[in-house]
Amino acid sequence: MKKTAQEIADFVGGTLYGNASEVIERVGSLDHAKPGDLAYAEPRYLARVKGTRASCVLVPSGEFPDRTVILVNNPRAAFARATQWLMPAERPFTGIHPTAMLASSSRLGGDVAVGAWTMIEEGVQVGRSTVIFPGCYIGTRCKIGSDCTIFPNVVLYPGVEVGDRVTIHSGTVIGADGFGFVLDGTRHLKVPQLGGVVIAADVEVGANTSIDRGTLDNTVVDEGAKIDNLCQIGHNVRIGAHAIISAQTGVAGSSVVGSHATIGGQAGIGDYCQIDANAVVGGQCGVLNGKRVPRGEIYWGTPARPLKQIKTQQAYLGRLPQMAEEIERLRAEVDALKGTP
Amino acid sequence: MKKTAQEIADFVGGTLYGNASEVIERVGSLDHAKPGDLAYAEPRYLARVKGTRASCVLVPSGEFPDRTVILVNNPRAAFARATQWLMPAERPFTGIHPTAMLASSSRLGGDVAVGAWTMIEEGVQVGRSTVIFPGCYIGTRCKIGSDCTIFPNVVLYPGVEVGDRVTIHSGTVIGADGFGFVLDGTRHLKVPQLGGVVIAADVEVGANTSIDRGTLDNTVVDEGAKIDNLCQIGHNVRIGAHAIISAQTGVAGSSVVGSHATIGGQAGIGDYCQIDANAVVGGQCGVLNGKRVPRGEIYWGTPARPLKQIKTQQAYLGRLPQMAEEIERLRAEVDALKGTP
Amino acid sequence: MKKTAQEIADFVGGTLYGNASEVIERVGSLDHAKPGDLAYAEPRYLARVKGTRASCVLVPSGEFPDRTVILVNNPRAAFARATQWLMPAERPFTGIHPTAMLASSSRLGGDVAVGAWTMIEEGVQVGRSTVIFPGCYIGTRCKIGSDCTIFPNVVLYPGVEVGDRVTIHSGTVIGADGFGFVLDGTRHLKVPQLGGVVIAADVEVGANTSIDRGTLDNTVVDEGAKIDNLCQIGHNVRIGAHAIISAQTGVAGSSVVGSHATIGGQAGIGDYCQIDANAVVGGQCGVLNGKRVPRGEIYWGTPARPLKQIKTQQAYLGRLPQMAEEIERLRAEVDALKGTP
Repeated sequence: MKKTAQEIADFVGGTLYGNASEVIERVGSLDHAKPGDLAYAEPRYLARVKGTRASCVLVPSGEFPDRTVILVNNPRAAFARATQWLMPAERPFTGIHPTAMLASSSRLGGDVAVGAWTMIEEGVQVGRSTVIFPGCYIGTRCKIGSDCTIFPNVVLYPGVEVGDRVTIHSGTVIGADGFGFVLDGTRHLKVPQLGGVVIAADVEVGANTSIDRGTLDNTVVDEGAKIDNLCQIGHNVRIGAHAIISAQTGVAGSSVVGSHATIGGQAGIGDYCQIDANAVVGGQCGVLNGKRVPRGEIYWGTPARPLKQIKTQQAYLGRLPQMAEEIERLRAEVDALKGTP
Repeated sequence: MKKTAQEIADFVGGTLYGNASEVIERVGSLDHAKPGDLAYAEPRYLARVKGTRASCVLVPSGEFPDRTVILVNNPRAAFARATQWLMPAERPFTGIHPTAMLASSSRLGGDVAVGAWTMIEEGVQVGRSTVIFPGCYIGTRCKIGSDCTIFPNVVLYPGVEVGDRVTIHSGTVIGADGFGFVLDGTRHLKVPQLGGVVIAADVEVGANTSIDRGTLDNTVVDEGAKIDNLCQIGHNVRIGAHAIISAQTGVAGSSVVGSHATIGGQAGIGDYCQIDANAVVGGQCGVLNGKRVPRGEIYWGTPARPLKQIKTQQAYLGRLPQMAEEIERLRAEVDALKGTP
Repeated sequence: MKKTAQEIADFVGGTLYGNASEVIERVGSLDHAKPGDLAYAEPRYLARVKGTRASCVLVPSGEFPDRTVILVNNPRAAFARATQWLMPAERPFTGIHPTAMLASSSRLGGDVAVGAWTMIEEGVQVGRSTVIFPGCYIGTRCKIGSDCTIFPNVVLYPGVEVGDRVTIHSGTVIGADGFGFVLDGTRHLKVPQLGGVVIAADVEVGANTSIDRGTLDNTVVDEGAKIDNLCQIGHNVRIGAHAIISAQTGVAGSSVVGSHATIGGQAGIGDYCQIDANAVVGGQCGVLNGKRVPRGEIYWGTPARPLKQIKTQQAYLGRLPQMAEEIERLRAEVDALKGTP
């Protein structure tokens, strides 16, 4: 789609400087953009604006006399919105592939696309305009909302519910049994996993992630939460609205992650934890079973502690050799003072 | 299936208090159970028994005059057993789907079910009553026992052996090449991975887990071991009988995990480690290459150490600021005593 | 294939001692080899050479009067090369399976094999002799080189490029969207992920790994790099030539791993990090956002520091109880010296 720089400025609510009629067709990065591209510059990369080949750059501040720029508060957000407008995602395919199998009691809304070798089991409901790629397995009684995209080789176990505008990337498994066993003598007895999984609207789940079904109640991912690749969401967990769960993080059974919380990569959250709203849990952080991270606080380390405390600890760790030397010196001087022979 | 409270008490070997003829059809959690449900209460949740709507509750102790309860030693185990009895898992489907492909030299026992688009390669043997869901790939010469359940999109590379009553969840890959390379000049030469994988009876493997084939000998998972989601089991590893491996744990090449050992989530066990029987390795623990965790001990931290030692270390870490201050005070006082000007 | 011990010695450039005409057909481990097998012994296992049943052993040193051995500098490398020669990998299958779907504009080189239920979308190019197993999804405009092996249930999103002789194990997903969101008010706006993934020649990628597409530019894996199972490679990352990335490691957005770098298992590398060539990052190490690991250095711990520094820190941590006691003793003695009552 072709737009002028002025049209883009108007769309993102920014102020244009330079050539208002510059034609923009595509987007690119500051370093690799070509003429006809829109780019954006975060504050630390403003020096690169001068050298870019992009026809127009979204900037947060500064003056660029020879360039066409659009001044906006948040260049990255404006760029994301402009990109969606300039280069709208195309429907990858339409219709029900002849090799897809739809059980007789399944119900599909209008414009649903189902790829080759995808199985839609009995009692499944799929909302309008949802696209399910090849090789997926949608178990009995699953409910999928409208305008969802489910990439190839995703598995939904029976009874999983997915809201509108949800994206699920390839290889992700939703609704497998939670890891529940109880020792019965010397053997582990399986605790039947009879709960469900409920994924609300506007959630995105990355590739090769696992979200287990609840034991008796549901595992829940609330509206707008984003879960990255290779995450483990255990049984009975609740991920709050608009929470961010970075790659390779694990949330163990029955823990609650509050709304707008941010969890870094490879973090481990134990059983029955409570991460309050707007809290931040740093990468590789380990929150021990039953612990709480208070609202809006930043925790890090294993065991997890307030970031400030961990940083203090790190600083003292660095001073340990000097402390040990000073103790030795004090020992020598005290011995001398005591007149020990 | 409908049972009376008395029948359930008899089945789990407990003592009934209350209405022996209460009809039980289903199970539920204390908080969300409905009339007709059996629930259970662990010691810390006994206070919730009073408020539950469940018709009968398995309890470890206490008196509940207005309620129907069954007194048992281990309510969770009794609940697991009663649930399996009340709500037996149904066969998800039967027969060989017409789109499944069975190589001419493969052999299937009675009542085996094979889903759509599942490939059973040459020389494969499958025991009776095993269910293999759609989209699985069973490589040449694999042997699968009876009464197994293999969920959608599981891949078994050639020659993998799986015992009876094994469950493998979706997306799991068993028998891919171990990560074996040797530097030959400036390039990595692949060390051919020619061993197999042997999974014994009653093992359960979670979703999106990888168990690599051995280099020359086999990777082995012994009877009754339970492996959670997103775990990495390296080449030549041996996981002992009834061991528990929690989600996102990695066990590197040639390590041995003893029987009834418990490994927490996101633990990393290096090459050639020895985790003895009944040992416990805590979450995110890092056991360095070649190290041993002795029988029955609890280890934690990176590098892994006895839990008690790690806790002591943590306590001292917390005292570091005070220690540093005390050293400064001592310095001032010693200087004063020395009469330094 | 049958070879004599002398032929193998000549092939690997070693010196034979013992029976030059010993017939070798297969390979085995020192402990489980059978007559007719070639084995190898690393220095620490030389004592086991005496007891092996292997017909010939590759050794780095030592004298074994009753045995047929081949003296070589690097027994493991020689063994890898001899194994590839003795037991060449067979083509698992040939031809295009009738259920595979090839879009009309896709182009396949000679001798390409495509398994059942594999989708090759529009505009895909595949080089000669490449094997793509069943259940794979190859998105539009992907380019795959020659002599590649793509195991079952691999997904390549649109536009992924893969060089010659690349191996990709089952369940791996290449080209899913990077995890890019920007807060727009109280909701996360998706940053469209429009870059690609370029995998160079001779790369091996393990099972259930995810390599995300770049945001605007490409995510790149250079020649000969080896990536293990369950790894996360974020958007815009560059993995250098012949780098080694061990299992369950995560490399976050825009980081660069230099050539011949070695990353241990479960390591976490933050955003915008720089791991220089030949650097080593230990297992579970956490490299914080924006940090650098210098060329050839070994880093460990979280936050990552030079190995020597971490070891010193560990040693001081172990001495903390004694330091605390010594401080107490000094306090008592200083108090006595001061004559405090």
